[in-house]
Amino acid sequence: MPSDQLPLPHGFRASGLHCGIKSDPDTFDLALFVSERPCTAAGVFTTNRVCGAPVQVSRERVPRETCRAVVINSGNANACTGSQGLEDARWMTDEIAAGLGCSSDDVLVCSTGVIGHPLRREALAKGLPSAVDRLAATPDAFADAAHGMMTTDTVCKQSVRQAEIAGRTVTVSGAAKGAGMIAPNMATMLAVVMTDASLPIDAVDRMLRQAVDRSFNRISIDGHTSTSDSVILLAGGSVQTGSLSAGDQQQLQTMIDDVTTDLAQAIIRDAEGAAHFITIDVGGLRTAEEADQIARAVADSPLVKTAIAGADPNWGRIVSAVGYAGVDLEETDITLTLNGTVLYRDGSPLAYDESALSEQMRTNRDVHIAIEIAHNGGEAVRFWTSDLTVEYVRLNAEYTT
Amino acid sequence: MPSDQLPLPHGFRASGLHCGIKSDPDTFDLALFVSERPCTAAGVFTTNRVCGAPVQVSRERVPRETCRAVVINSGNANACTGSQGLEDARWMTDEIAAGLGCSSDDVLVCSTGVIGHPLRREALAKGLPSAVDRLAATPDAFADAAHGMMTTDTVCKQSVRQAEIAGRTVTVSGAAKGAGMIAPNMATMLAVVMTDASLPIDAVDRMLRQAVDRSFNRISIDGHTSTSDSVILLAGGSVQTGSLSAGDQQQLQTMIDDVTTDLAQAIIRDAEGAAHFITIDVGGLRTAEEADQIARAVADSPLVKTAIAGADPNWGRIVSAVGYAGVDLEETDITLTLNGTVLYRDGSPLAYDESALSEQMRTNRDVHIAIEIAHNGGEAVRFWTSDLTVEYVRLNAEYTT
Repeated sequence: MPSDQLPLPHGFRASGLHCGIKSDPDTFDLALFVSERPCTAAGVFTTNRVCGAPVQVSRERVPRETCRAVVINSGNANACTGSQGLEDARWMTDEIAAGLGCSSDDVLVCSTGVIGHPLRREALAKGLPSAVDRLAATPDAFADAAHGMMTTDTVCKQSVRQAEIAGRTVTVSGAAKGAGMIAPNMATMLAVVMTDASLPIDAVDRMLRQAVDRSFNRISIDGHTSTSDSVILLAGGSVQTGSLSAGDQQQLQTMIDDVTTDLAQAIIRDAEGAAHFITIDVGGLRTAEEADQIARAVADSPLVKTAIAGADPNWGRIVSAVGYAGVDLEETDITLTLNGTVLYRDGSPLAYDESALSEQMRTNRDVHIAIEIAHNGGEAVRFWTSDLTVEYVRLNAEYTT
Repeated sequence: MPSDQLPLPHGFRASGLHCGIKSDPDTFDLALFVSERPCTAAGVFTTNRVCGAPVQVSRERVPRETCRAVVINSGNANACTGSQGLEDARWMTDEIAAGLGCSSDDVLVCSTGVIGHPLRREALAKGLPSAVDRLAATPDAFADAAHGMMTTDTVCKQSVRQAEIAGRTVTVSGAAKGAGMIAPNMATMLAVVMTDASLPIDAVDRMLRQAVDRSFNRISIDGHTSTSDSVILLAGGSVQTGSLSAGDQQQLQTMIDDVTTDLAQAIIRDAEGAAHFITIDVGGLRTAEEADQIARAVADSPLVKTAIAGADPNWGRIVSAVGYAGVDLEETDITLTLNGTVLYRDGSPLAYDESALSEQMRTNRDVHIAIEIAHNGGEAVRFWTSDLTVEYVRLNAEYTT
């Protein structure tokens, strides 16, 4: 499938347009995803104690059996905006509900962009009815909606999986935005995932949480948790309406995992300023949480990130980040492998061809760090991050509110 | 006192010289601090599970009632060097003990510099006896020793306090090294603090821990805990040999706190690449740990650090970092003040003169962030950090092992 011709699941429509929140008239700033019939919906939101008004409104409304729509504006996060922000977020869902003829509670809302500024209601007052008018089930409409979510993203992020489940073709389609490293004003990550399979409310919630744990919760650009992160899963049931067997549910879970992982990786790959896409495998721990702690310590270390930006196989920075991750382990249990070359084992460095490894890092965008811990357990995680470049600092320092 | 004429406490001698670990013959790479008589000693070391051989050796030997010396080499951290590294660290203390005529266990050792390389024994075999030969009680000798600890530091870091305690002039003298942001090869922080007051072994340990908690444990450059951090306090008792009253101990504690705080701030001020020295006050929490968590989240956020580098009063980044610090609080309880201007209160931003504040940040090196949390408690901490500049990334990315 060409990337601009990705289908929506059956029973879903979408639209995207410019309504005037962003100043550039050629840039979309509004997106709408609609299920023709009431669908089950789950949401996972930022854990930040400071969270945007739309997060507060949407969080109250999921999980839900009768969801109809997700409306998203970009260019303004509607965060740190007090009681006016909450009123504005609810009003956005009122406007969409009026257009669709449903209850406001059946509409979810997300906002992303600048923090601490009130929404421009006059732009949205025109834009929201237009978004309803333009709803279509076409790949173009899906792409328009994906564009309407973008802030500082340089590429539009969509992913689709299709498979036969219980004799019917089931589609899982997702769109995400993530500004990654440049995040000049706390632009954040949002994703909407839709399927035409039928899922009861407990399953839609459980399956979304599992997918997010394996994808969006396994990426970090700069360790700064935003005020607006939201991932929403809608299960419409237009194609597959009966209850799924455990095996079918597992197949659907894999499709959802694949879509969210595609989108999470796309966010890392689009991290502006980044020169490397870094995959971190951590194995041999007592729990996945311990493996995650180690991966996150390595991923968030500015010294590891700058070394990789400089194509420097500086294993000491990686091993020492493992050491301070807060996991109870012995230094001699750590084995570190960088792009397939074992650099550290049994408490001592190994001889290796440093210039060849550095050259490999200079010419390849992908870097693979494998950390294996002996004598602790069998749990593992895979994690993704980007490097820290001069360009990242320039983008984030030279931006002025 | 001119900064190059700071005194050692009575009963202490020091030396510093070039022995050949570093290639530049004009740069010192060896330091020795000696107490003429056995003194009480305490040490606080890195919490990293991966720690240098000298940390392992010194940690076993403190707290101690009969300490005589601290020997420090720079240019090589002797970390991740396996059993050979442990042998080398012990051998360094053997050589000094032989020169002083004491037990090896009465000598502590620190190393700082490149990670994962064996020490050059032939350089040290000549250098260690020379260091003993050159010991002197002069300010010049103290400055030489402080220079011998330096790696990528651009200024020598010493601090002295003198006061009358129980009728006698007591001196507290400290030296530290800290490469701060540039840390191109896990160069780390080390400090030695000496006093001629008398302190029993339990007091020397307790007082060092308190001083470190309020100074070195309240700074962060890049959140990367090194393998070699060590702070040592030696109490020689040459001047004040009787037992101190509670009030006198409190006065001495304040002097030690002042010296370690001076040295900790000097590390942040010397963070190469840094354009701003940032003081973060966090108050109104249930515990000091909660206040510390918030200060650290703000200090370690690359988005906060880059905003300050760009003289951007981007309060949304600071407030959102408070939100994800892991402390249970309400967004509406946060008040944020930047350089004396209140920017955020009761869940909403306040109007302020943005260009004036930005101009103030552009022209002043010092930035003050005050975060006050309502309705939670009365605990507060003060924390120091530096900003994240293009120069930091350049120094750490373009360095090649």
